[in-house]
Amino acid sequence: MTLLLSNNDAEELLTMPDCIAALEKAYAELAQGMSVSAVNSDAITPTKTPDAIYQLKLMGGVIPGLGVGALRFNSDVIAYRNKRQVKMALAPGARYTGLVILFSIDTGEPLAIIPDGVLQRMRVGAASAIGAKHLARADSRTVGLIGAGWQAGAQVMAITATHRIATVRCYSPTRDKRVAFCREMSERTGVTVLAVDSAEEAVRGADIVLCATNTSQQVFFDHWLEPGMHVGTIRGAELNAAVVKKVDIVVIHDRSLRGVSAVSKSITLPEDRIAIAGMPDIDRLPSLAELVAGITPGRAHAGQTTCFLNLRGIGLQFAAVGDALYRKALAAGRGRELPTDWFTEDVVP
Amino acid sequence: MTLLLSNNDAEELLTMPDCIAALEKAYAELAQGMSVSAVNSDAITPTKTPDAIYQLKLMGGVIPGLGVGALRFNSDVIAYRNKRQVKMALAPGARYTGLVILFSIDTGEPLAIIPDGVLQRMRVGAASAIGAKHLARADSRTVGLIGAGWQAGAQVMAITATHRIATVRCYSPTRDKRVAFCREMSERTGVTVLAVDSAEEAVRGADIVLCATNTSQQVFFDHWLEPGMHVGTIRGAELNAAVVKKVDIVVIHDRSLRGVSAVSKSITLPEDRIAIAGMPDIDRLPSLAELVAGITPGRAHAGQTTCFLNLRGIGLQFAAVGDALYRKALAAGRGRELPTDWFTEDVVP
Repeated sequence: MTLLLSNNDAEELLTMPDCIAALEKAYAELAQGMSVSAVNSDAITPTKTPDAIYQLKLMGGVIPGLGVGALRFNSDVIAYRNKRQVKMALAPGARYTGLVILFSIDTGEPLAIIPDGVLQRMRVGAASAIGAKHLARADSRTVGLIGAGWQAGAQVMAITATHRIATVRCYSPTRDKRVAFCREMSERTGVTVLAVDSAEEAVRGADIVLCATNTSQQVFFDHWLEPGMHVGTIRGAELNAAVVKKVDIVVIHDRSLRGVSAVSKSITLPEDRIAIAGMPDIDRLPSLAELVAGITPGRAHAGQTTCFLNLRGIGLQFAAVGDALYRKALAAGRGRELPTDWFTEDVVP
Repeated sequence: MTLLLSNNDAEELLTMPDCIAALEKAYAELAQGMSVSAVNSDAITPTKTPDAIYQLKLMGGVIPGLGVGALRFNSDVIAYRNKRQVKMALAPGARYTGLVILFSIDTGEPLAIIPDGVLQRMRVGAASAIGAKHLARADSRTVGLIGAGWQAGAQVMAITATHRIATVRCYSPTRDKRVAFCREMSERTGVTVLAVDSAEEAVRGADIVLCATNTSQQVFFDHWLEPGMHVGTIRGAELNAAVVKKVDIVVIHDRSLRGVSAVSKSITLPEDRIAIAGMPDIDRLPSLAELVAGITPGRAHAGQTTCFLNLRGIGLQFAAVGDALYRKALAAGRGRELPTDWFTEDVVP
């Protein structure tokens, strides 16, 4: 049987500590050269909706130590509005199309089919958590959070899983949104999450700064850095080269070949969505896998400033968190069992 | 609804002319830079079976003129035996795992889920057919076929769709296999398909030579070339640089970036499976899309020798043939309707 799971299943079953544990195993194997990710590959063309593009996005990775591989794909109509990319819910029922398919590497069979929404935020959050575990001060108590969306929520779940956080101060431009976010995240994590009126107010005096916006504009500045501070970003545009150069330790999520996009002639893409302004040598930074494996050093003393660039997601993250969810779903008897024969064949392709 | 189709549906509904028509449209758009394919990307690791590897293979492509995109993936345990790659049927029921998912580029939704077996052979065959249409003599009557497997069958279907073939002479090393193959293909195409005892006997005097083996050894030699002959191969190892250099016109299926493999450290792959021995400048050859679009010339006179290297498959082929099958299945009321909600989500990933 192939297990069809839902975002609800993932929300209810999958915890941030599950994801952190699975990813730590995956990164340790990655550092040894055993886990691998396929190159991220996109195909981008026009679509019917004016000022929008169609994007087919493929990622994949395999973790031999867990015995699984996974494919993650997105089939999206995307508009660019006010320097933000907006995915359009045009599938029937006003829905989005993004899935993770988990495979057994011993039989090849599809073990589970899972929407990518919750897994996506959990793998991003868990990677930030692992970065902070090695780079932020162990006694960090206050977090400055810039952003109040889906990914910002995962950052709160992540950092409260690795550190005994007392207060999160959150800024995002829309007041109602940040207030609602703070209420929700306080309830969810039991940590005080406070809405503040500016990014500077959020980050001033914070032990840990987490940027989790969907903007392509800078939101954190080098003159805001304080001794001992750890800064994390999930989009390169959120900070600039001055921040990266000024901190004592910088680690990037993954250094490997950047994704490759095949783009129709008629399309002009907006500026690079993960570039860090003025930062050409990003490929020489140590990676999270090397940090986890102890190949590159983490924080050595309380006064150091550190930065984790949680950029360049890789396919094996979906194998790790997908497997963690699959095991919990099996144990809990959750999900819809589909005949595996639907997704396999008796002819050699 | 998302349509779940089977290899049986594809066998019964999809004809070689359907595939040729769909691919001609795709290649014409590709030549204009409108259709695009994602980079082929593999992730390869150890698996439980000794002397075997696990390979997750990802392809994708989008054809705006047809309004569709497609993902094709394979999740295979592969052994290498006697210089051949052997996919192992280890999924439940002794089955293989390979699927095509067809998407609407206007909504993003998954339109159909289709095993890749029949589509795979049809897209390879149809590409060979299109190559032969432009490169072989229009009055070609005899075909020399080397190979008697699944792909060889598609080559017979392909060449009999584009040319009024009188005789196919087929050689493959195992006598019983080639005899059974010839009987089956004669019945299927209505063309005389004869088993012969050597490759040389198959190709001598043939107007068209088609190599469709799964060997990584050379099967066609330059001294077998005759005036006016067209030679096609689906694996580079089947011929060598001497053949390619000697013929008057050579076209390669696709010139774009070769697929990228991420391979676990412990794995040593056998020799490049699509390389042409002694042929480093394959990237400068004209492509099938350019041939279809008239950007590169086809055969000019009856005495020319020509060669089509049907190598480097691209994702958009699966979008083309997948769409052709989907339309026919809709018209015929075939397939199992699955709720599209199973494969979509209401959170923005």
